[in-house]
Amino acid sequence: MPGDLPRDLRVRQVLAANGLAAIVCRLPENLVCLAGYYPQVGLSFVVYPAAGEPVLICPRPERDLAGNGLIADVRPYETWRLVDPPPLESVGKILAQVVAEKGLVGQPVGFEGSFEAVSPSQMAGEPYVFAQPTRELLGRLIGQSLVDATESLNQIRAVKTAREIDKLRLANEVAGIGLQVFKEQAQPGRTEAQVAAAVEAAIYASVGYKGVRAARAWAQVFSGPNTIEGWYYPVSTNRVIQPRDTVMIEIGTVVDGYWSDLTRTVAAGGRADSRVRELYHLVEHAQRAARLAARPGVTGREADDAARQVFADVDLVDCFQHHTGHGLGFRYHEPIPSVHPASRHVLEVGHVHSIEPGLYAPEFGGVRIEDNVVILEGGAEMLSSRDFGLE
Amino acid sequence: MPGDLPRDLRVRQVLAANGLAAIVCRLPENLVCLAGYYPQVGLSFVVYPAAGEPVLICPRPERDLAGNGLIADVRPYETWRLVDPPPLESVGKILAQVVAEKGLVGQPVGFEGSFEAVSPSQMAGEPYVFAQPTRELLGRLIGQSLVDATESLNQIRAVKTAREIDKLRLANEVAGIGLQVFKEQAQPGRTEAQVAAAVEAAIYASVGYKGVRAARAWAQVFSGPNTIEGWYYPVSTNRVIQPRDTVMIEIGTVVDGYWSDLTRTVAAGGRADSRVRELYHLVEHAQRAARLAARPGVTGREADDAARQVFADVDLVDCFQHHTGHGLGFRYHEPIPSVHPASRHVLEVGHVHSIEPGLYAPEFGGVRIEDNVVILEGGAEMLSSRDFGLE
Repeated sequence: MPGDLPRDLRVRQVLAANGLAAIVCRLPENLVCLAGYYPQVGLSFVVYPAAGEPVLICPRPERDLAGNGLIADVRPYETWRLVDPPPLESVGKILAQVVAEKGLVGQPVGFEGSFEAVSPSQMAGEPYVFAQPTRELLGRLIGQSLVDATESLNQIRAVKTAREIDKLRLANEVAGIGLQVFKEQAQPGRTEAQVAAAVEAAIYASVGYKGVRAARAWAQVFSGPNTIEGWYYPVSTNRVIQPRDTVMIEIGTVVDGYWSDLTRTVAAGGRADSRVRELYHLVEHAQRAARLAARPGVTGREADDAARQVFADVDLVDCFQHHTGHGLGFRYHEPIPSVHPASRHVLEVGHVHSIEPGLYAPEFGGVRIEDNVVILEGGAEMLSSRDFGLE
Repeated sequence: MPGDLPRDLRVRQVLAANGLAAIVCRLPENLVCLAGYYPQVGLSFVVYPAAGEPVLICPRPERDLAGNGLIADVRPYETWRLVDPPPLESVGKILAQVVAEKGLVGQPVGFEGSFEAVSPSQMAGEPYVFAQPTRELLGRLIGQSLVDATESLNQIRAVKTAREIDKLRLANEVAGIGLQVFKEQAQPGRTEAQVAAAVEAAIYASVGYKGVRAARAWAQVFSGPNTIEGWYYPVSTNRVIQPRDTVMIEIGTVVDGYWSDLTRTVAAGGRADSRVRELYHLVEHAQRAARLAARPGVTGREADDAARQVFADVDLVDCFQHHTGHGLGFRYHEPIPSVHPASRHVLEVGHVHSIEPGLYAPEFGGVRIEDNVVILEGGAEMLSSRDFGLE
């Protein structure tokens, strides 16, 4: 395997542990993980056998992009011109050949059956997903031994390699370019949507920075009373930001297929009310507590508890209604590790997760700070950097 | 039904024609169609019975948004806080009740089994889709009589109502705000990604314009040699635009759940080479020919042929490798009507489709113009407007 041997070993280890002869994937997030390639359109497939070389199938116009990834055996097909058969027909022919070559007929082969939240391809306005047509194609080729391998894929993805952690650091760096614009633009007189639009544009325009090929962000800015339910997913409105408003940004950034998930809270005009300032320091304190607690061998519950205790100590725990964090990296949110009061996940070296304590109440609005960390031998290391505070 | 009686009639007509007692949907694009509501997150469901009132299930923070749509019976559930059960569990409880009320157990009930291309919710960085967990939930509630109703949904969606056509006109108007920025910024010295980012930002910042709540675009800008395969989905790179470059933009815009799909081609610096100018006029001519041909009773093939003949007449038909158009409205691309040499779709009043002839060759690059039309009694009416040309 060129490029990322630890990733290859991890894949084979999880396939073996789950008794799978191979896994076949088409979701862009799994192609990023298994093939190191972020599809433009989403009509690419990977066959990863437990033994032998993996195969990548992609539309011919994406061949160079795909070939720069981790898989050497790239098999392109022509598509979308009048003379070409429908994509699944062309893919099916190549898949049939690969299945025969790798001896997968009648073997336990895994597919992506239960992904109900997905990461888009670069064509994010119209994501391609796994549904009945792909399920039927695989069924015809493999037989009854086809199994839903969503859990195995989540396990494969949970531990990030050194190469992937570098990519996640870069994604957070690019997100930081957008956050700088947020800081500058979250001013009285601007609408929430105007601020969010400027942030997204700064990130998209960074294509080319340090070799980045694809950069895109989804930013939501909410201000004043709109922050009260900031734990949900408020969308940017045309509300005009007022002096001393609390202004929050929730931003997902994808850079070449690797994700960052950040939140910042600022006071419009640079001056916060003293109560908000106090809450902000508490949230910072809770985030630090969770980060210091998060290390190999600790459960997600324990890390969550470290943050929650900070709020409990000042009788504000009821204002922190959500989890302290979640896995991420190949998608905006991933299930492993969960940093939640009910989590039994044990943190491992290579886990990547958010730490995002927040406080919300009708009296004072919302305050949240969200950063991303990777678990290393010595503890949790920040992937994102905080270049500005509330004021 | 408040708001859109023709939509309600169309839904019931197609359900009856396909022997369905009801349809249950969760894909945002189908909620926009059936409920006139563009979900923020994508954890909303609609139950539309062939007889009786439809029911909308949504997270409580989206209740007001959902209630402004077409369905009166909105049943919210709490989600995402520590105290709340997982969303599908809460939805399942309400669904069970609705299924009992409407007498749907053991009845033929349709679901969204075969959507492999989907429109994202407002949380477009992480779309929610239909997969095995929802399939199993419906199976437990309905039984073996559950059927894949993707084709019925495509039929329901194919014919747009007057209200929806107004929404699509507005989507195109908002897209036009972005295109104006494209025209201004597609200049020598800018990178493709910088231009695309500015266009997207102008559209997002238009939230509030004529009551728009959600506006977002996906723009790809490609220039010079990058236009040669402009019929695929080239992505914006950090290539710096050069004087006299041909610069193309492919842009999908969603406004409150309704889609526009446009392409413009300009010459950087305002001056094109004479060969490109000639090709541009041919493409304009072909687009006009298809638009004049498209009217009720004509097949998609005939409309396609009108455009193709223009290129055949000058021996350039081999440079037009793709379809003349596709349906759209509830998604960036919809299957009905197809305007393609193999299309047997008969155009009907209310069909909405693109007309996007193009010419591509290594010698001269790519030139495409794409607009959206609605089929009315008198013929195809433009939904988009062309405010500038090549130069």
